Amino acid sequence: MTRYNMSESEMPSAWFNILPRLATPMDPPLHPGTREPVTPDDLAPLFPMALIMQEMSPEPWIDIPGPVLDILRLWRPTPLVRAERLEKMLDTPARIYFKDESVSPAGSHKPNTAVPQAYYNKMEGINRLTTETGAGQWGTALSFATAQFDMECMVYMVRASFEQKPYRKIMMEVWGGNVVPSPIDDPSNPGSLGAAISDAVRDCVQRDDSHYALGSVLNHVLLHQTVIGLEARDQLRAAGEELPDVVIAPCGGGSNLGGIAFPFVPDESVRLVAVEPSACPTLTQGRFEYDFGDVAGMTPLMPMYTLGADFMPPSIHAGGLRYHGDSPIISKLVHEGRMEAVAINQGKVFDAAIKFANAEGKVPAPECGHGIAVAIDEALAAKESGEEKVILFNYCGHGHLDLAAYDEYLSGRMVDV
Amino acid sequence: MTRYNMSESEMPSAWFNILPRLATPMDPPLHPGTREPVTPDDLAPLFPMALIMQEMSPEPWIDIPGPVLDILRLWRPTPLVRAERLEKMLDTPARIYFKDESVSPAGSHKPNTAVPQAYYNKMEGINRLTTETGAGQWGTALSFATAQFDMECMVYMVRASFEQKPYRKIMMEVWGGNVVPSPIDDPSNPGSLGAAISDAVRDCVQRDDSHYALGSVLNHVLLHQTVIGLEARDQLRAAGEELPDVVIAPCGGGSNLGGIAFPFVPDESVRLVAVEPSACPTLTQGRFEYDFGDVAGMTPLMPMYTLGADFMPPSIHAGGLRYHGDSPIISKLVHEGRMEAVAINQGKVFDAAIKFANAEGKVPAPECGHGIAVAIDEALAAKESGEEKVILFNYCGHGHLDLAAYDEYLSGRMVDV
Repeated sequence: MTRYNMSESEMPSAWFNILPRLATPMDPPLHPGTREPVTPDDLAPLFPMALIMQEMSPEPWIDIPGPVLDILRLWRPTPLVRAERLEKMLDTPARIYFKDESVSPAGSHKPNTAVPQAYYNKMEGINRLTTETGAGQWGTALSFATAQFDMECMVYMVRASFEQKPYRKIMMEVWGGNVVPSPIDDPSNPGSLGAAISDAVRDCVQRDDSHYALGSVLNHVLLHQTVIGLEARDQLRAAGEELPDVVIAPCGGGSNLGGIAFPFVPDESVRLVAVEPSACPTLTQGRFEYDFGDVAGMTPLMPMYTLGADFMPPSIHAGGLRYHGDSPIISKLVHEGRMEAVAINQGKVFDAAIKFANAEGKVPAPECGHGIAVAIDEALAAKESGEEKVILFNYCGHGHLDLAAYDEYLSGRMVDV
Repeated sequence: MTRYNMSESEMPSAWFNILPRLATPMDPPLHPGTREPVTPDDLAPLFPMALIMQEMSPEPWIDIPGPVLDILRLWRPTPLVRAERLEKMLDTPARIYFKDESVSPAGSHKPNTAVPQAYYNKMEGINRLTTETGAGQWGTALSFATAQFDMECMVYMVRASFEQKPYRKIMMEVWGGNVVPSPIDDPSNPGSLGAAISDAVRDCVQRDDSHYALGSVLNHVLLHQTVIGLEARDQLRAAGEELPDVVIAPCGGGSNLGGIAFPFVPDESVRLVAVEPSACPTLTQGRFEYDFGDVAGMTPLMPMYTLGADFMPPSIHAGGLRYHGDSPIISKLVHEGRMEAVAINQGKVFDAAIKFANAEGKVPAPECGHGIAVAIDEALAAKESGEEKVILFNYCGHGHLDLAAYDEYLSGRMVDV
């Protein structure tokens, strides 16, 4: 393998805003009561005005504040890696690259947006954030970010993950986060991201000192993640590649996919592929319509692919991909045919993850394994056709805290949904 | 923080052998039966001849084989990082650097020697290795390394760690390792490294197809780790530093300490500091004499600091530092005053580890926390005296699989031995 490092000074200093570059404008989110387009004031109880403005900004580039850059530099720029040992294992003419977001404090791409979200809230005088977390990556990231600005963090963790992943909870506590299982009022319920969002929003609106932070779905979250794709473009050029033929990433709410893919949307030759679990097939089986982001119907209605706000996916190991909806921007790109979507079973995911661990020496998170599995499919298709394809995927998180899932797979106890 | 990356082409292509650079020669290991100096043939049932020759080599540099370099490049060169946020937290004039060995497949420095050990065995036609593991880092590293050469791996894991760290076992299994708790014949015994070594050596000598691999203590193991210090020297120069004032690392058997410190031994101005747990104070409280490496007295007798081969340390969380003996080279350097040693309690270790996690965004292994705690002490001493000291420590492993220990500390349940 070959790593393409960038120096800290080459890190992007502005985020790439896709909104003004879309062929047609986004349909607006609607107020859950009036069903009228939401106004900035409607969102002010939840978010600081700087993030609300980003949510609908027409600016093509938005500067990253200096104090945010200072913290992102703890782990950014992240390496772009050519997976030569995986290529050899697959005997493919394809060149496979991955962007390694697992090197962050939380072990995933999530801190890329947790840090600016904490920063903008702090600037508005907010000292406490509430949030939900599925697999635990987002809660860990926000706990780290709030610790950097001396803020409190209250995390509602999907109960299935809370019970499967005690280490995730402890990691949040190392950074001072408070963690409780969700739904808080039903200990027999394994929970879902939609239900945990309701818990976190309810907490936030009941208190004057708190705002709410979301780890995916919203436009400003995906905006903050575009540092991934911007760096990857520069690093691919340094590796001697003009453009990738295909960009692949797992998709739950859409933030790691948006982060790596949006900077390539204007390059029409580049295929963009969303990978989701068969157990929660939002983009491949859902309807494209207005729906709530949460179970309780407290969030605005968003135009997106959805399985229904009350959809309760099975307890698969990729907890971060168990969301009934999807980012409205990702949904629009899929709806209009600019982005593809594919759903795969978790057995295939773990088979690919173990191949990758043996070839490249890194044990991926189950979410991350979704992208790897489809990257392998693409590499094998290139072998079939003899094409020298350039494949880029997002290595969005390590699996060090997901090893119980590997145990289940290796011992033959995993249900292959 | 600032990272000093090196390109893969700048990686050292030879190991730094300290043996011919010592002022006086090492006393030889003695045969456990005859008490005569061991011959290469005595060691041949356990190790391939290439490693036995390295154990006593007079060559100042030993070339790293190409196939070994190819695998080490999966994660090497590792970054040297200036911990500017930690400096600021401590308000110290010292400049603190750490060498980040946590980026390896196993999450520690251990694969640096696991890979060449697997390689040299494979070259000699051996297809199965037995070993012991304490914290689990070494077993993980050897499982990864044997997988690269299609070999079998049998790991005897200290029972206390086996039970505390189920994730470590699973990680070994992801790479195809077989893992059993040790001592194998006494399920009520929490075990020790010395006992696990006996189990692994006994397995090896009973079979023709197997060799044994040790993760620390021996000269060839420390030799392989010198890539750490060699890279760090070059990276410090790139950072504008002539030499560090002090080099700090935790010491169990001595391999991560030897790895970072040996290339600085000829520079007499550089202080070298070994940090061990108060619960297993080999260098600070042990006797300097010939002793067995294992409980059962099957290994050669080595000239080293020892607490006695039957010493059973309490079940502290830094399982990798629970060894009754120490590397003979490290022991000699301490005995002759070239290296200092200090012992600290685990409460101090976790306090330092959490400070570091909040400042630098990385959660260290408990072993690694020992070095951090003393680096912080040195930085505070520099603040007291107003010195612009340059501190280098080895960030020898992440704590992602040690979070249960953090939980114990944060909840006030940890016994501060």
